[in-house]
Amino acid sequence: MLRESSDQSFAAGRPEIWRAEGFLAELRRRTVDLPGVTRASYGEGEQVAHDMARAWAQELDLAVETDFAGNLYMTLPGRDRSLPRVMMGSHMDSVPHGGNYDGAAGVVAGLTALQRMRRLGAKPRRDVTVMAIRAEELSWFPAPYIGSRAAFGILPAQVLDEVVRFDTGQSLGAHLARLGYDSESIRGGKRYLDPRGIHAYIEVHIEQGPQLVQSKQRCAVVTRIRGNYRYKHCRVLGEYAHAGAMPRADRRDALFAAVEFVRALDAMWLRREQASEDLVCTVGQFYTDAAVHTITKIPGEVRFTMDFRSDDEAVLAACHAELEAHAARISRERGVNVELGERTHAPVAVMDEALVALAQRCAQRLAIDAPRMASGAGHDCAIFAKQGVPSVMIFIRNFHSSHNPKEEMVLEDFAEATRVLDAMLDELAA
Amino acid sequence: MLRESSDQSFAAGRPEIWRAEGFLAELRRRTVDLPGVTRASYGEGEQVAHDMARAWAQELDLAVETDFAGNLYMTLPGRDRSLPRVMMGSHMDSVPHGGNYDGAAGVVAGLTALQRMRRLGAKPRRDVTVMAIRAEELSWFPAPYIGSRAAFGILPAQVLDEVVRFDTGQSLGAHLARLGYDSESIRGGKRYLDPRGIHAYIEVHIEQGPQLVQSKQRCAVVTRIRGNYRYKHCRVLGEYAHAGAMPRADRRDALFAAVEFVRALDAMWLRREQASEDLVCTVGQFYTDAAVHTITKIPGEVRFTMDFRSDDEAVLAACHAELEAHAARISRERGVNVELGERTHAPVAVMDEALVALAQRCAQRLAIDAPRMASGAGHDCAIFAKQGVPSVMIFIRNFHSSHNPKEEMVLEDFAEATRVLDAMLDELAA
Repeated sequence: MLRESSDQSFAAGRPEIWRAEGFLAELRRRTVDLPGVTRASYGEGEQVAHDMARAWAQELDLAVETDFAGNLYMTLPGRDRSLPRVMMGSHMDSVPHGGNYDGAAGVVAGLTALQRMRRLGAKPRRDVTVMAIRAEELSWFPAPYIGSRAAFGILPAQVLDEVVRFDTGQSLGAHLARLGYDSESIRGGKRYLDPRGIHAYIEVHIEQGPQLVQSKQRCAVVTRIRGNYRYKHCRVLGEYAHAGAMPRADRRDALFAAVEFVRALDAMWLRREQASEDLVCTVGQFYTDAAVHTITKIPGEVRFTMDFRSDDEAVLAACHAELEAHAARISRERGVNVELGERTHAPVAVMDEALVALAQRCAQRLAIDAPRMASGAGHDCAIFAKQGVPSVMIFIRNFHSSHNPKEEMVLEDFAEATRVLDAMLDELAA
Repeated sequence: MLRESSDQSFAAGRPEIWRAEGFLAELRRRTVDLPGVTRASYGEGEQVAHDMARAWAQELDLAVETDFAGNLYMTLPGRDRSLPRVMMGSHMDSVPHGGNYDGAAGVVAGLTALQRMRRLGAKPRRDVTVMAIRAEELSWFPAPYIGSRAAFGILPAQVLDEVVRFDTGQSLGAHLARLGYDSESIRGGKRYLDPRGIHAYIEVHIEQGPQLVQSKQRCAVVTRIRGNYRYKHCRVLGEYAHAGAMPRADRRDALFAAVEFVRALDAMWLRREQASEDLVCTVGQFYTDAAVHTITKIPGEVRFTMDFRSDDEAVLAACHAELEAHAARISRERGVNVELGERTHAPVAVMDEALVALAQRCAQRLAIDAPRMASGAGHDCAIFAKQGVPSVMIFIRNFHSSHNPKEEMVLEDFAEATRVLDAMLDELAA
């Protein structure tokens, strides 16, 4: 973490800022995996992070609990413990060779806020809890939001049986059982968190895109989290044939067909963006079959993935319909079969407008320029919002994007975001 | 091999046709590797084929020789052995799980013709030799025309050291030494075949495309063998980034850039074909990096291959220039680097016009409708032609394309092609 300048006035009188910096530096050292850090979901690096958070919570004499899925709850008890509580949180796992702050910064921000309340001798009206959430990243077990969904009792049982860790091949259920977690409670849909018991959920997170870097602002208030349509198993089937001897008219070239399809997707995106529709489209995987492809063979099969996201459900549905039409047309014109395959849908999540307004009011009072922004990436916060919990996110500026070792947060930006968080807690729980 | 109908008049008085059918059936049985047959270059199946050809040659009391590279020569001696000889030939290796006739049919046609000459007690003016050529297919050692180039002393020494078998990783030189061939003679550029000693080279081969099937003709006379430009290591370098958080304008998406490039290639091809230019274009391999790609990551790198072929050198050069311009434009517009990488060039090979005319005259006399045709695929015959040997090819109709197990030649078509071959030999060597 960079300190932006020798001027450290942003931390004046706030020793918890140095505690946060030290925590993040130690976390990096203990989970380093050059280049970057590695904290596998339900793995070693994530456990290091949870153990470190627990130790800090114990220093602060917080009440510490773990649920059946391994999520960690660190609570400053309120004067009336029967009132719905305020929660902060984020995840502590990372992608392989990822950055130090994606996820961890949010848990650290929460603990920084609780350390300030302890320092000030605050006695909040209601419980204030920091949640270190398990398994948010898709890299290890390819299912989204495992920890937060399990806590709300909404992780489908089939995820335990069908989702396997990419490297070991072990199912999530078997992996959890081996670690001593109670996968039967997850399977039974048991609720550890009741939405009615949560007054507000605030997730601090680094921005994963470049908007705050470009606008030279330190933090933002998130208004919506984009939904997505995902297609993991798109496929084009044509016919393998000799590259030299087969005339154009007789080819059933799966590659040229797949390329025409993706080019149509790209053109659709450009057109919709120019019409001010919110949309991003990604084809993350695209490949001919390594077992049979050669330089002199017309490809008979191509596989690829699609992910497109929008903060508008109507845009997602319209994109799907448009792409289905392209698939049918290209199949017909090229004598191939363009199959979009199974689709998953994560709906758009809307942040609580009162919390958004509160965050903006707090920032304004502190003279912090925090614009409203939609989140392009998905976050556990979407699960809270969809469970009916009033929810909001605060983004911290982040250099060099995320999910890579060059991800970089500046301490001063973190300090400014926690000032907004502190002010929000003062209103929500004082 | 199918017999087209119960009418077998095409073989009347020609017992060598049944010998050929039996040979091909036995060859299939002895090299079967379902689906299809497998005859690795300098491997087991190819050796089976060479041993079977040698045995047939010995039945016919031909003079049999093997050169330092393992090519097999089976000669009916002429009255004047000092005259330049007539050669026929083709290769006997196959792609993995390939068809039975690609290559082998040409050697079998040659031996069928020599069996006829023996049956008729012919005493040719000059030697007539059938050559079973090694290692034509690119699948095993990815270098073209290993056997025929070695015979002419033009296989570069570096091919022995740098080209490795795809499955064992052993270099061609080490592999040949292990089999007892004289790779030092190859390295030294020794000539086993002198172009001045060859009066004509005739290669019978199945057509690898569908033109004769579509035109309902049994065989064709080849006028040119297309040249090619090949690019084994095309690459687009962009930047990996988060699929949700990175706006379109900030992306350096290697996949969308590569797709735009291949789409431009496809459009160029269509336009040039509509302008009656001879051209086929293939992108046989195209892939994001399996070690790092995921559904939610913008690809930072794509690799692909290109192969384009034409019977006109000017078209090849113009395509290259046009694609270089597309690469530069897309690199600039998308903030990526589109690299075409190293290029290899196999020049267009022109068949000998006198031999083409002879073949057509013979066919006409036999009332066989044998059109002129360019060969889309490459053949050893191109090496003979480029060495200055007057050369020609006769194509036999083939169903279901080649380099796949469904490849299928009809015995009657083979019989008709050998009638043309017989007539040509009667003129060239009688």
